[in-house]
Amino acid sequence: MDAVTTNDDIALKVASHMRAAEGAHIAHGLTLQSAREGYARVALAVGADMLNSHGSLHGGVIFTLADTAFAYACNSRNESAVAAQASIVFVSPARAGEILVAEAVEQSLSGRSGVYHVTIRAPDDNARIVAIFQGLSRSTGKTII
Amino acid sequence: MDAVTTNDDIALKVASHMRAAEGAHIAHGLTLQSAREGYARVALAVGADMLNSHGSLHGGVIFTLADTAFAYACNSRNESAVAAQASIVFVSPARAGEILVAEAVEQSLSGRSGVYHVTIRAPDDNARIVAIFQGLSRSTGKTII
Amino acid sequence: MDAVTTNDDIALKVASHMRAAEGAHIAHGLTLQSAREGYARVALAVGADMLNSHGSLHGGVIFTLADTAFAYACNSRNESAVAAQASIVFVSPARAGEILVAEAVEQSLSGRSGVYHVTIRAPDDNARIVAIFQGLSRSTGKTII
Amino acid sequence: MDAVTTNDDIALKVASHMRAAEGAHIAHGLTLQSAREGYARVALAVGADMLNSHGSLHGGVIFTLADTAFAYACNSRNESAVAAQASIVFVSPARAGEILVAEAVEQSLSGRSGVYHVTIRAPDDNARIVAIFQGLSRSTGKTII
Repeated sequence: MDAVTTNDDIALKVASHMRAAEGAHIAHGLTLQSAREGYARVALAVGADMLNSHGSLHGGVIFTLADTAFAYACNSRNESAVAAQASIVFVSPARAGEILVAEAVEQSLSGRSGVYHVTIRAPDDNARIVAIFQGLSRSTGKTII
Repeated sequence: MDAVTTNDDIALKVASHMRAAEGAHIAHGLTLQSAREGYARVALAVGADMLNSHGSLHGGVIFTLADTAFAYACNSRNESAVAAQASIVFVSPARAGEILVAEAVEQSLSGRSGVYHVTIRAPDDNARIVAIFQGLSRSTGKTII
Repeated sequence: MDAVTTNDDIALKVASHMRAAEGAHIAHGLTLQSAREGYARVALAVGADMLNSHGSLHGGVIFTLADTAFAYACNSRNESAVAAQASIVFVSPARAGEILVAEAVEQSLSGRSGVYHVTIRAPDDNARIVAIFQGLSRSTGKTII
Repeated sequence: MDAVTTNDDIALKVASHMRAAEGAHIAHGLTLQSAREGYARVALAVGADMLNSHGSLHGGVIFTLADTAFAYACNSRNESAVAAQASIVFVSPARAGEILVAEAVEQSLSGRSGVYHVTIRAPDDNARIVAIFQGLSRSTGKTII
């Protein structure tokens, strides 16, 4: 019986490929949890080396987490896309030792442009929101794998 | 004759203090070049460990560079401020080996809110723009040093 | 039997009050369709007087539609809030004669800050997305009605 | 002796053409003050019909003013461009009777994408900032005039 490759299988292969090809500085603390067509979920273990001078997680690392989930989601159809623009709102600080989870969800895909929302949550009882991100992608017309 | 502490001296002391208190993951490749009242300039040496799967500098690192310059500029009066929101446009890719420079300039400061523009350039003959960032800060009412 | 005033009743009263107090230039073409706690839906009849020089709906009017739905949603608890920042992506053009619908949905509410997503759709068979908006509100501590 | 048509002459012709082709709802209260290559300045006379329910100028009209200046600046080379994305920070409220001025300045132009900053000021002694806008344009490859 033949195996069937679904769109979601492709998404996971592409995300895994991208993840493996990223530099160690980017990958530090990140785990790819899930990828489907137009969707990705990435976790971050917040380390003490990621804190800003206020003692909370640096905004650049929060953005990197969101941007990584966004990248896997907007490349999920194996059509290479890059970030053209992104906007982030910082909702609540995160602390060393927390495991944050970023979920990227496709909002629209029109021509070569896509819009993705990414919500970053901490593992509180109420799944506290740490940041909310909106990204605009632009397809390059190439494939990834 | 007494030394005089200017607003620009304070800005540089605050930025140096913040820089020293940041985690090693954040500091990786970054150099504080200059800080004045409402202004900061930070450089990044792009390492191979910072690249994305397309082989260019990961957007998260570009954002971290801009966000760091923004942080030094919006804290430059020794009044602690945090990022509330930021927007970034990715203009051109950056490559391993390049030294990028981010300049943050205060656009407005009204009550507890500030707006800062950050331009990130590569060291081409024409100082190629890599990204343009706009940040909104919110003062916490505390001091830094 | 006593009438019960729900949170959703309050939201609709507040939105109706705001709507009635807006200037005629703002109200032009707009209809409040629905308001609940943390949510609002507003429609726009696109008029020929709203077009830009390319013959499609001016971005300022698209933003005004989104911003209006955002305002009703972020004021829905009868705590006055104002827009601090907003970001919009223009996905597809809209034409004279179309009825656009903007839906604002609360994403987070933390302290005095709220984040809202607004999706603007045209009445195609596939509910074509015209624009995607993200707004950051800040409560003023006053009431509306 | 022949007249010479400069790039700035073209910018003003294009802006004037666009201005004349906009619908009356958009043009309401707006005046084109200046246009040069990569630059435009537009004024708005704030009318009582433009106020929100808080009694200050509606954010949608502030955005429309900024977006209009942005449009003239990003079309100034007679290459048609449209807004892909915009971000705005609302700094201080504006009142009926004030004349606001929006200045759009090109920050980068790379391939078909441009980034523009627009600052909106009120006519206070200190030229109070009302809003700060950042727009991303995308060229369509057509001409305007």
